[in-house]
Amino acid sequence: MSVPGLSINLATVRKQWNMREAAEACVRHGITAIAPWRDQVDAIGLDEAVRVVRDLGLQVTGLCRGGMFPAATAELRQAAIDDNLRAIDEAHALNADCLVLVVGGLPGTRDIEGARMMVQDGIEAIRAHAAQAAVKLAIEPLHPMYAADRSCVNTLQQALDMAGAIGPEIGVAIDTYHVWWEPGLADQIARAGHENRIFAHHICDWLVPTRDLLLDRGMMGDGVIDLAGFRAMIEKAGYHGPQEVEIFSAQDWWTRDGDEVLRICIERFQSLCAARQD
Amino acid sequence: MSVPGLSINLATVRKQWNMREAAEACVRHGITAIAPWRDQVDAIGLDEAVRVVRDLGLQVTGLCRGGMFPAATAELRQAAIDDNLRAIDEAHALNADCLVLVVGGLPGTRDIEGARMMVQDGIEAIRAHAAQAAVKLAIEPLHPMYAADRSCVNTLQQALDMAGAIGPEIGVAIDTYHVWWEPGLADQIARAGHENRIFAHHICDWLVPTRDLLLDRGMMGDGVIDLAGFRAMIEKAGYHGPQEVEIFSAQDWWTRDGDEVLRICIERFQSLCAARQD
Repeated sequence: MSVPGLSINLATVRKQWNMREAAEACVRHGITAIAPWRDQVDAIGLDEAVRVVRDLGLQVTGLCRGGMFPAATAELRQAAIDDNLRAIDEAHALNADCLVLVVGGLPGTRDIEGARMMVQDGIEAIRAHAAQAAVKLAIEPLHPMYAADRSCVNTLQQALDMAGAIGPEIGVAIDTYHVWWEPGLADQIARAGHENRIFAHHICDWLVPTRDLLLDRGMMGDGVIDLAGFRAMIEKAGYHGPQEVEIFSAQDWWTRDGDEVLRICIERFQSLCAARQD
Repeated sequence: MSVPGLSINLATVRKQWNMREAAEACVRHGITAIAPWRDQVDAIGLDEAVRVVRDLGLQVTGLCRGGMFPAATAELRQAAIDDNLRAIDEAHALNADCLVLVVGGLPGTRDIEGARMMVQDGIEAIRAHAAQAAVKLAIEPLHPMYAADRSCVNTLQQALDMAGAIGPEIGVAIDTYHVWWEPGLADQIARAGHENRIFAHHICDWLVPTRDLLLDRGMMGDGVIDLAGFRAMIEKAGYHGPQEVEIFSAQDWWTRDGDEVLRICIERFQSLCAARQD
């Protein structure tokens, strides 16, 4: 029994399994798509990671992550660019649908607009290589609570503005966790679709209370995000690709049996994440 | 020796002192403006709070807080409106520069747009009473990490849009903590000034890491916000009123001696918070 439309970002089960184990578990549960992180790829080696994907016939909905462009010196910024070029090669080898860009925060300064310019410069410096490798670059706007240390791109509108400023081939990864609160979200999702920039769609839930800024994301249904309504906006915008579950959860989901986590991902995906027809 | 331009939001020293003690301490340090919370007013009684303000000759830069409009039933929404009417009366009695509105989050639903409509309805229901009492209503956009449980108004742009939809007399409270990350912030601050809607300016800093979503705000200078640059935008927009220090800090500033907290507030305010002339 397969579960079409569902992808598992392997961060969701990073404490339970390595990449091969996680991929095999996904297949065992009928899941046909995954998104690994680069450290998970590194841990088993890129060649082995490519074999895993090919042998199991998996779709790779994204490679996490490129980005992290802002840095204090030109040398460090170049090092970030070089690392992104390697990430593009890895995404190409894995036949990933996109390379997800978590763009980076403040480079040791208090100048967020300067950081944003460094991000744009960084993406411009890697776009030719990405095009050559046929790897799509997806800017992922991150929740504003990460503006200082992870991403100075914090709304879908801002991500689309930046993508538009760089080029028509740059897209976005839309994660419910990061943008569910955004004023004017429906318009921005529609715009993203109209501009053909929706390269990935990540899901999880916002818990109340949220006990940790980074590692307390919720399973779909356990929080306050209207996931069916969100998916309806995405589909209305013309995107019908997979929903990729990405949950960082130090105290809950990372402590559970991996098969249980996948089983519940499937249940919640099937019961809660189909687009609601308003 | 007085400290012109500095106000202390009394939440900053809420664990150390009651309202009278805190106000007297402010005066001892040369601080001439305060902003109390309603529970602090209640604790000593409104009449006594009015005497404190009058006897000490203090400016009250705001009363915190009205708002919290969204609720599951019409009865509960009316109760919230009634409570806001009382808050207006208290703000009037205290001669506060404004009543700060922390508008509220989701009313037990997953419908954030519906919550936003309840907020607008709520403000519309109290504006006549506020006008009669000559109390200015200041919508305070809160950081998006509070969208679910404290405020579904999460950007300055959104707050200004809502104020504009309600009426020309509705303003905003601009807190560095909540909006420092906002894309297009300079434009929105300029717009707020142009529309004469800046009723209050709160300051504190964003710590990296932030260990708690609610109670880990930083003292000016200890985080990543460009406070001098922020103040420059505010003054360029025509606002030259006080900067009000509001720090919730369970593990740090609330555990320190209150006089030490005020001394450091003054030092940091004087060294870091003057508008930078670019």
